[in-house]
Amino acid sequence: MAQSTPVSPLAPTELAALPPIDGMRIATAAAGIKYKGRTDVLMMVFDAPAAVAGVFTTSRCPSAPVDHCRASLGGGTARAVVVNSGNANAFTGRRGRQATEATAEAAADAVGATPREVFLASTGVIGEPLDAHKFTGLLAGLAETAGADGWRSAADAIMTTDTYPKLATRQVAVDGVTVTINGIAKGAGMIAPDMATMLSFVATDAAIAAPALQAMLSQAVAPSFNSVTVDSDTSTSDTLLLFATGAAAARGGATIETADDPRLDGFRVALSELLLDLARQVARDGEGARKEIQVTVEGATSDAAAKRIALSIANSPLVKTAVAGEDANWGRVVMAVGKAGEEADRDRLAIHFGDIRVAVDGERDPDYSEDAAAAVMRRAEIPIRVDLGLGQGRWTVYTCDLTKEYVAINGDYRS
Amino acid sequence: MAQSTPVSPLAPTELAALPPIDGMRIATAAAGIKYKGRTDVLMMVFDAPAAVAGVFTTSRCPSAPVDHCRASLGGGTARAVVVNSGNANAFTGRRGRQATEATAEAAADAVGATPREVFLASTGVIGEPLDAHKFTGLLAGLAETAGADGWRSAADAIMTTDTYPKLATRQVAVDGVTVTINGIAKGAGMIAPDMATMLSFVATDAAIAAPALQAMLSQAVAPSFNSVTVDSDTSTSDTLLLFATGAAAARGGATIETADDPRLDGFRVALSELLLDLARQVARDGEGARKEIQVTVEGATSDAAAKRIALSIANSPLVKTAVAGEDANWGRVVMAVGKAGEEADRDRLAIHFGDIRVAVDGERDPDYSEDAAAAVMRRAEIPIRVDLGLGQGRWTVYTCDLTKEYVAINGDYRS
Repeated sequence: MAQSTPVSPLAPTELAALPPIDGMRIATAAAGIKYKGRTDVLMMVFDAPAAVAGVFTTSRCPSAPVDHCRASLGGGTARAVVVNSGNANAFTGRRGRQATEATAEAAADAVGATPREVFLASTGVIGEPLDAHKFTGLLAGLAETAGADGWRSAADAIMTTDTYPKLATRQVAVDGVTVTINGIAKGAGMIAPDMATMLSFVATDAAIAAPALQAMLSQAVAPSFNSVTVDSDTSTSDTLLLFATGAAAARGGATIETADDPRLDGFRVALSELLLDLARQVARDGEGARKEIQVTVEGATSDAAAKRIALSIANSPLVKTAVAGEDANWGRVVMAVGKAGEEADRDRLAIHFGDIRVAVDGERDPDYSEDAAAAVMRRAEIPIRVDLGLGQGRWTVYTCDLTKEYVAINGDYRS
Repeated sequence: MAQSTPVSPLAPTELAALPPIDGMRIATAAAGIKYKGRTDVLMMVFDAPAAVAGVFTTSRCPSAPVDHCRASLGGGTARAVVVNSGNANAFTGRRGRQATEATAEAAADAVGATPREVFLASTGVIGEPLDAHKFTGLLAGLAETAGADGWRSAADAIMTTDTYPKLATRQVAVDGVTVTINGIAKGAGMIAPDMATMLSFVATDAAIAAPALQAMLSQAVAPSFNSVTVDSDTSTSDTLLLFATGAAAARGGATIETADDPRLDGFRVALSELLLDLARQVARDGEGARKEIQVTVEGATSDAAAKRIALSIANSPLVKTAVAGEDANWGRVVMAVGKAGEEADRDRLAIHFGDIRVAVDGERDPDYSEDAAAAVMRRAEIPIRVDLGLGQGRWTVYTCDLTKEYVAINGDYRS
């Protein structure tokens, strides 16, 4: 395991306090899967079947729990969620499937559901068989003792090399009734000797049917979790699940069947904000991160082109090390624009660091003040804005700098 | 400029000694473009028009000299090459074009040619206007004093943050007459505060027409320079030029017009070997490199798929830091296979580090010995081999590890 590292300087000054979500309860336990002296199992229990939506890693080598969730999602309802940290149950072959089956069956028995109504996620070492029996015997007790106030404990239990728990909450009216959306995430910390997993669990008491929930989630994830990168590496296990308990219906809330229902307009905005909040917390806790970088590309031929160029900039080791060095190195930004494979005209490019325009019309800005740019680079949040001057396409991507600590966390444990 | 760093531990124990190439001469000068106390201008002069072929950066934001070479290549002949280090003449707008024009005209005057018969390359700082007059006045003198024995000086003059000059030579018979191929390169060292450039200049005394030369070069570059990556960042300036003086014709050598002429079989092999030799020297001098990584993917659905997966592995910061940490972390290799976007079946994957099979059939190899794998990881050259078990596609990519020194070289100069 990596050395414990100090809390990221980009951690929130105060953690969000999450209220209960009607219709669900939470419990955690310390099963000793890998870590000692901390919780490593999270169970969420829904009092009645909750609508569920999910998005997963695009990896061609997904983990066993991702396979299980994908297969279960068609059912559209969830009764329980079980998450463990310390072992990712990825690249574990037949034994991996046996572990997910055993966990889903034990949780289903504990809450009186079917295994397909149980959703699973695992994060930690990969290639190491997961001994699910370390925690399957605990699930009945967890289901019994689960309470409404466990969100902070839940966020703690799923951490691996995260340096702070990630929490967010929003309240919004749906057809005149206030509903709550809570979310937790664990981030792109890599756990030695293995890899990162991004997990996030979001729940609301709103009454929204599963297809509508899925449509909203798929849309909201594009500018949030799918616009965050720490090091361009895609985990085998990335999982984002959204649950709607529907308990607000008992308070007179509407039950909404389709994503384009105008009564969801406020909810959609709140969900998008919450996902972006969590996604940025993940970027800001990237391994070794000392600065958040917000890369905006505008004037592209399309939003998709803008996103590809923004990701090319955000994933460039040369751009990320320049930010770590507090250097307004726009030459490296030009390089990353040029290699992205999208249309770009060198002689129309303009580049800003914060409010400082450093390059315009394919040359260094004649009015560029190195002192002013240096002041921007000393900030904790570095906005880089590129105007391609070609069209209306626009996208923003969030990342962090690349520091020697990143290399130390991921490479030093053998030396 | 970055602090001077010690010579890469992967440097060749002995630099190749390059014989003269009949029909061409070399000179270098110290013009003080940026560096002090070292040469920074290289001039190559061809006694008669040489056939020329070239490949260039795929960047959409190429440097002014790349624009010049691309435009000149159609002529098919070269009388001179002028290269400067210390300034890349990239993202310099109109003034960049003026600098290439002034240089080409001065060199053309010096050798009695047209500007389109002069080939140019620049490497160093970008975004900084290049004052070509620092060296245009020297070119007539360089053309006059150029000699046959300047290859080592040439390799020195084009270095930026390279820690050693890169040289290679081969001799091969073409239709019974021995010809020589010499090549030099400068590598993916990034020069603070700006970026890398890969430049390589290769020349032979064989008599080969320009179209045949271009066809052979385009083919030979795929498994060599186009299969090397240091940090996935593509320079604005990458340039590889191949010249054939034809002087071997005076010794009875054949003049060859087409690339599929069987008399070129040996030459093609020798050229490919020489380019791979130079390309690997570039990877082994990647910034902060302590280990060379050779990633071979086989059993893919096509060679192109194998190459994309191999590049995904070779560019993964997590794989590269694991190698730096001497950790046989095959889980990160699985991750990189999964994210490449090519067909892969998790449950058929086999992974080798050196001769040690660490994973098979989608699980850790039951016979895997951690000690044996650790012994492989302590070597200076780390072969990683992935068998996808799907087809006949195969490719090898060369890279280096990612160390704290990389971050220091590219990020520290402001702190």
